[in-house]
Amino acid sequence: MSRDPAPLLLTMGDACGIGPEICVAAWLREGRGDARVVGDVEVMRRALRLLGLALPVARLERADEAAPPDCLPVWEPPGLAEGLGGRLVNEPLGQVSARAGAAAARCIEAAVREQQAGRSRALVTAPIHKEALHAAGIAHPGHTEMLQALCALPDGRLPPVRMMLANEELRVVLVTIHVSLRRALDLISTDGVLETLRITDAALRRFGIAAPRIAVAGLNPHAGEGGLFGDEELLQIAPAVARARAEGLDARGPFAPDTVFMRARHAPGHPGEFDAVVAMTHDHGLIPVKYLGVEQGVNVTLGLPLVRTSPDHGTAFDIAGRGLADPSSMCAAIAMARRLGAG
Amino acid sequence: MSRDPAPLLLTMGDACGIGPEICVAAWLREGRGDARVVGDVEVMRRALRLLGLALPVARLERADEAAPPDCLPVWEPPGLAEGLGGRLVNEPLGQVSARAGAAAARCIEAAVREQQAGRSRALVTAPIHKEALHAAGIAHPGHTEMLQALCALPDGRLPPVRMMLANEELRVVLVTIHVSLRRALDLISTDGVLETLRITDAALRRFGIAAPRIAVAGLNPHAGEGGLFGDEELLQIAPAVARARAEGLDARGPFAPDTVFMRARHAPGHPGEFDAVVAMTHDHGLIPVKYLGVEQGVNVTLGLPLVRTSPDHGTAFDIAGRGLADPSSMCAAIAMARRLGAG
Repeated sequence: MSRDPAPLLLTMGDACGIGPEICVAAWLREGRGDARVVGDVEVMRRALRLLGLALPVARLERADEAAPPDCLPVWEPPGLAEGLGGRLVNEPLGQVSARAGAAAARCIEAAVREQQAGRSRALVTAPIHKEALHAAGIAHPGHTEMLQALCALPDGRLPPVRMMLANEELRVVLVTIHVSLRRALDLISTDGVLETLRITDAALRRFGIAAPRIAVAGLNPHAGEGGLFGDEELLQIAPAVARARAEGLDARGPFAPDTVFMRARHAPGHPGEFDAVVAMTHDHGLIPVKYLGVEQGVNVTLGLPLVRTSPDHGTAFDIAGRGLADPSSMCAAIAMARRLGAG
Repeated sequence: MSRDPAPLLLTMGDACGIGPEICVAAWLREGRGDARVVGDVEVMRRALRLLGLALPVARLERADEAAPPDCLPVWEPPGLAEGLGGRLVNEPLGQVSARAGAAAARCIEAAVREQQAGRSRALVTAPIHKEALHAAGIAHPGHTEMLQALCALPDGRLPPVRMMLANEELRVVLVTIHVSLRRALDLISTDGVLETLRITDAALRRFGIAAPRIAVAGLNPHAGEGGLFGDEELLQIAPAVARARAEGLDARGPFAPDTVFMRARHAPGHPGEFDAVVAMTHDHGLIPVKYLGVEQGVNVTLGLPLVRTSPDHGTAFDIAGRGLADPSSMCAAIAMARRLGAG
């Protein structure tokens, strides 16, 4: 048995998208020491070929097996190929495929089980495709919901999770995610905001920030302007901030959404005022994180008894298989998973 | 009578905020040739003093009078001081004042009338304070609504206007502004989006862009993901884009809100894909414009039979009168007004 720390596992994502090729490229640049791919061996060989690499695949028997040098280490979860009813590598690139959806889900599940068994210290997930999951009969629209279900408590309850998007400048944690804006308004509650603040504070401490400074963005223009433009700040958000502060958290706000991200931004000559911003809606939070480019953005799932990061982009079917995909965000996700998984 | 082009008029804004001092600082840096201040002469003298400037005020009889050199040219609208029932310069800085609200409104009205009479070619407005307007009994919450009322059509109808925020990188036009997010959802209609597109296209052409490329941001996460996360894109926004295209406009979308601003961003090595983005809500649009700092942001009111710009920040009561206010955005607003008012 190896005395090396348990590996980082990179799930290949949707085999018809850019996932396999960014796994290869990011492994070469950022993952050689301690990362292994969880995926279909044939698909990973194709990814190596299309990138013009002569690197052989080392097919691992176990995810935490010591990998031979100068090979791409790939662990194919048992039964992956057989369960698909056809070779995954034959599915056309750049198209929705039920087989690719099923294989992506199976790899995620297997990688989660490895981390739960102590044989992996962090998970980095390449992009999956919602429609492919749907075509495969997977009930979950994305990684977050799938991971939550895989980490269900013994009594069946799901652990509360939140999505954090982070780059070098800004960390944003979302109160609501993949729902209509109208539904998001109905979902915002004091309890939900307070839970987000607790999850965010705990995660930032785990990231090594001793006294996290958390800003809360309002929901309405000018954070409601004292009730003139909506009352969610007064009725739901401010009480959550007050309760969090009573618990000892350094939470502040709600602030006007249009300037709080600028205030939190860490850049040369511009030290940010906050370590993270809690945003009420998907796009209030993601617009500023993505504004300067998605290359360095990393998605981190907070609240799980797992370490999980992912790149901040999708399957990019339009360029899949052409060797054009930029692995920068996947590299940043690996680096962040390594940092978070070290604790 | 001077043969110079009609001047730019800078309204002093709320006399208790940073308006007067940024008018002075921006006039010195950007407005010497063709700009005059519309304001209270005593307040403008105080602003000169607190900036440590020995410059005298030239009190103009008419807004378009030729101004003597090496003086700050100030036109005090007739009756301004008398109408306030007390000296404006005695109102404490950094506080809400009904007199300051009334004076700010009077200056705006007078400057608009000058432009309507052909004695000014553009208006640049320093910040006003909503509560001060309210305290003065002014029915309008901000400049936009006030200008719209001042430009009412003979039959009483108000001209449809839209707020554009622009900096060197990005131009954003808003479909809804100072209302709660819940109300904004109810206000989004095919007609409203189409009208925004028409106003935006006309304004960009007036700015010298021969074939404006306009992106439309969706409302919901992922622009609704085909109806999974809300149907406003399908029912309201996409039909407006289609109708605009049928009219010959180069409108595209609706696109996912979280990446469309990044795509439109013009920066060195990153040519933007669009000349402007139409955003459904105040904060979808303003978060990206303000993210890199409010210093260069300019507010332009589109749709009026006037040229009007303003800085992209408020009265900053906390630093008013201390000579700390950054006039960059006011300078950018003057430069943009000059460009737009040249046509």
